[in-house]
Amino acid sequence: MSKYGFNVQLKCGFDEAIEKVTSELQKEGFGVLTDIDVQATMKKKLNIDYPPYRILGACNPPLAHQAITADPDIGLLLPCNVVVRQEEKGAITVAFMDPAAVLQLVNKPGVEELAETVRAKLMRVRDALVKH
Amino acid sequence: MSKYGFNVQLKCGFDEAIEKVTSELQKEGFGVLTDIDVQATMKKKLNIDYPPYRILGACNPPLAHQAITADPDIGLLLPCNVVVRQEEKGAITVAFMDPAAVLQLVNKPGVEELAETVRAKLMRVRDALVKH
Repeated sequence: MSKYGFNVQLKCGFDEAIEKVTSELQKEGFGVLTDIDVQATMKKKLNIDYPPYRILGACNPPLAHQAITADPDIGLLLPCNVVVRQEEKGAITVAFMDPAAVLQLVNKPGVEELAETVRAKLMRVRDALVKH
Repeated sequence: MSKYGFNVQLKCGFDEAIEKVTSELQKEGFGVLTDIDVQATMKKKLNIDYPPYRILGACNPPLAHQAITADPDIGLLLPCNVVVRQEEKGAITVAFMDPAAVLQLVNKPGVEELAETVRAKLMRVRDALVKH
């Protein structure tokens, strides 16, 4: 898709997609620490109608700890975002931030390997969703 | 500081720093949509002692709307994170994600200008904090 993420399309309801994503993230050790309801925020703040659109902030605590130890400001690029959004025609797109793309901005020892580890986990989540 | 952010150091209490940052963000149109307490999360999940460390997710709704309109997956790189963390010697570091650095990953018309606008706002927040 883009230089900074990878995605998958699901044919299910929006809430079901959120549940599947949350559950598959959990299997790879990611908890969802933040959850922004973009649709609700845009309606409330700007009175603009959006399709369902959520930004989930996924965090794997042991890997986040390694990242912060390598660079204390790396929290600026955490957690790993997962966007779940409904396309106009109804399909659900689940997009994952590519940690290898985003963390290339960090020039610290060990961060590149760490980003590859996180990337591999998120790709397994993506692949597991395809099988649903 | 780094290729992906800029920062300022404050000499005040941690909670006071959070209040100041939140208030100055508000003056530039940013609400804090997410707030990760890294110290509490690391203690709970890994039983590791961290200094106070929070990741605030700042969002300016009209600018976020422009960004999502330019690229629906840009939510992967939102909101703009602001890290507030206590250094070992007690000073508080406030670090801002540099939107111009992070959004360079997005190759869509208008995004570069938008990133510069957000960057200028966050730099004004940083400068206002210096004056406190």
